[in-house]
Amino acid sequence: MTPALIGIDWGTTHRRAYLLDARGHLLAEASDAQGMLACQGRFRPALDSLLQEWPEAGADVPVLMSGMVGAATGWQEARYLDAGTPLVQLAQQLVAVRDAPPGRRWAIVPGYCIRDAGGRVDVMRGEETQLLGALTLGHGDGWYVLPGTHSKWVRVDGGRVSALRTYMTGELFALLTQHGTLASVAGGAAPDALEAFAQGLTAAGGAALSHALFTCRARVVSGDMPALHARSYLSGLLIGAEWCDALRAPEPLRHVSLIGSAQLANSYAVAAKHHGCDVTVLDPREIYLAALNALGNPSR
Amino acid sequence: MTPALIGIDWGTTHRRAYLLDARGHLLAEASDAQGMLACQGRFRPALDSLLQEWPEAGADVPVLMSGMVGAATGWQEARYLDAGTPLVQLAQQLVAVRDAPPGRRWAIVPGYCIRDAGGRVDVMRGEETQLLGALTLGHGDGWYVLPGTHSKWVRVDGGRVSALRTYMTGELFALLTQHGTLASVAGGAAPDALEAFAQGLTAAGGAALSHALFTCRARVVSGDMPALHARSYLSGLLIGAEWCDALRAPEPLRHVSLIGSAQLANSYAVAAKHHGCDVTVLDPREIYLAALNALGNPSR
Repeated sequence: MTPALIGIDWGTTHRRAYLLDARGHLLAEASDAQGMLACQGRFRPALDSLLQEWPEAGADVPVLMSGMVGAATGWQEARYLDAGTPLVQLAQQLVAVRDAPPGRRWAIVPGYCIRDAGGRVDVMRGEETQLLGALTLGHGDGWYVLPGTHSKWVRVDGGRVSALRTYMTGELFALLTQHGTLASVAGGAAPDALEAFAQGLTAAGGAALSHALFTCRARVVSGDMPALHARSYLSGLLIGAEWCDALRAPEPLRHVSLIGSAQLANSYAVAAKHHGCDVTVLDPREIYLAALNALGNPSR
Repeated sequence: MTPALIGIDWGTTHRRAYLLDARGHLLAEASDAQGMLACQGRFRPALDSLLQEWPEAGADVPVLMSGMVGAATGWQEARYLDAGTPLVQLAQQLVAVRDAPPGRRWAIVPGYCIRDAGGRVDVMRGEETQLLGALTLGHGDGWYVLPGTHSKWVRVDGGRVSALRTYMTGELFALLTQHGTLASVAGGAAPDALEAFAQGLTAAGGAALSHALFTCRARVVSGDMPALHARSYLSGLLIGAEWCDALRAPEPLRHVSLIGSAQLANSYAVAAKHHGCDVTVLDPREIYLAALNALGNPSR
C-alpha cells in the first residue's frame, strides 16, 4: 500500500494522474483540465499542486509523464524516437526533467516521429505509452486505432511502430459544429442517428473530405436529411474518411485494436463492422496503468 | 445617366451593391459587412439603409438580390431551381419579395440544387448569377471554378448546370488557422511560399484530407518544414484536394474558367498549371454586372 509511482497522462487540454504502489496496484487517481494549454508554460507549479493532493507520496516517489508535456511547446522537449526503437524499450528512453528538485525522479516519456517509404512524416506523443501498455498486456502486432481529437492509426510490427497516420477527426468535428457554417445545421445536442452515421461512413470515400463535409449542409437545406441527423452524418463522414484510407492499403484490413473511451470505441466499432473488419476494444485506463508498471519497473 | 437597376450580391458575411443606368452602365457601387449573419433577420432595414445612400434612385428602380439573402435562413426563401432550368432563364425565375413596399419591384434570384447520378445533392446561391454573367459575356460550356469560403466547381453543358461540387476550402482554412491546434503553426501572417504551396498540392491526393491537414503540423514539429511555410502548405493541401477530385473524373480536365478575386484566382491558376490544366480568369465584378443587365433587361 506504499506509494511507489505516479504517472501522468498530460495532454493538450487535460491531464489524468495515477498513484500506484510497488506491486502496480492503483491507490488513487485524479484528472483535471490543467492540460498543456491551460498551464501556459507553468508546468512546475501545476505538478506541485497535483502532488500536494497526495501527501502520502513522498519526495522519493518517481513521476512519469507522457503526452504533450514533452512537446517543444510543453514543459521540456523530449525528442521524438524513430521507428528503430521498439516500444518495449521506452523505459530506457525516459527523459529526466531538468528543473526537478534535487533528488526527485521526474521523467518524460518521448513520443515517436515516423516516416513512411515516401518520406512523409507523422508524429505522436502519449499514444506510445498506450501502445506499450497494450503490448505489456499481451496484445501483439497489428493495427491499433486511438480515436480522439487527433485519431491515430498505428501499425505495430515486431513490437516496433511501422506505420503512423494521424487524422484531425475530433478537432474538425469540434471546429465545424462550434464555429462556421455547419454549426447552424449540426450544432447543438442531437440524439445518435445510426442510419445517418452509416450514410456518412458510405459518403466519406466518394470525394475530397472538404466536399463531403459540405454535403452535410446541402442535404439539410435541400430537405434530403433532417437537421437532427446532421451531427451523426458528420461524425460518420469524419470517421469514415479514416477507414477509407485504411482500406486503400494493398493488404486487406481484417482486424484493429481500439483504444478509446467507450463512446468513441462504439462509433469506431460500428465503422469497423460497416467495412467488414473485426475489432478488439481495449480499455485506455487499464492499458495506461499496465504501461506505467512497465515503465516504472522495467525489470519486472 | 438615370438610375434604372440596383443589384445586390448579398452573401453570408458581406454584400456588394451596384447601381446601373438603363444602358447597363455602372453609376455607383457600395460594399459593406451587412451580410446575412450580421443582419440577424432584419433585412428590410438593412436594404433601406443601403437605398438611402442612393437618393437618386427613385422608388421605381427595381432591386435584384442574389446569394444567401434567398436562403431559408435569409430574408425570404427563394426555392432552389433544378438542373432542368437553363441559366439564361433565370430572369423568368425571379422571386418577388413579399414584404416590399407597394409598387416596389424587389426580387431575389433563386439558387440551384443539383443531384448527381448517384442522388448526391449539392446547392449554390449567388454563383448562378455569376455563371449567367459569364454566359452573357460569351463564355460557353465547360468547368467553372468559383473559389472562396465555399469553393464551387460547376459544370455547364448546353447552358445548364450539369454538375456541382462545393468544397469548404476557405472556411476550413480560416477555422484551422484561427482556432485549434494548427493555429500555433499556421496562424499569423506569413509570406507566400510557392514551394510549400506546391508541396501541399502534391500531398493533397495521397490520403484523407483530415490526415493531410495534420501533416502540416507534423512537418513543422519534426523540423521538415519551417513554420513560416505552414500557411502556404495548408492552402496547397486544401486547394489541391479540389483538383484531385476533379482529376479523378473519367474525362480529362483540360480547361477551367476561374471566377474569383485576383489573389484566389492566382492560387488556383498555380494549381491548374501544376496539374497541366489551362485557365481563363474572369473578373467577378464584370461578370456580375453582365448578369444584372441580363436579369434586369431580359429582352435586350
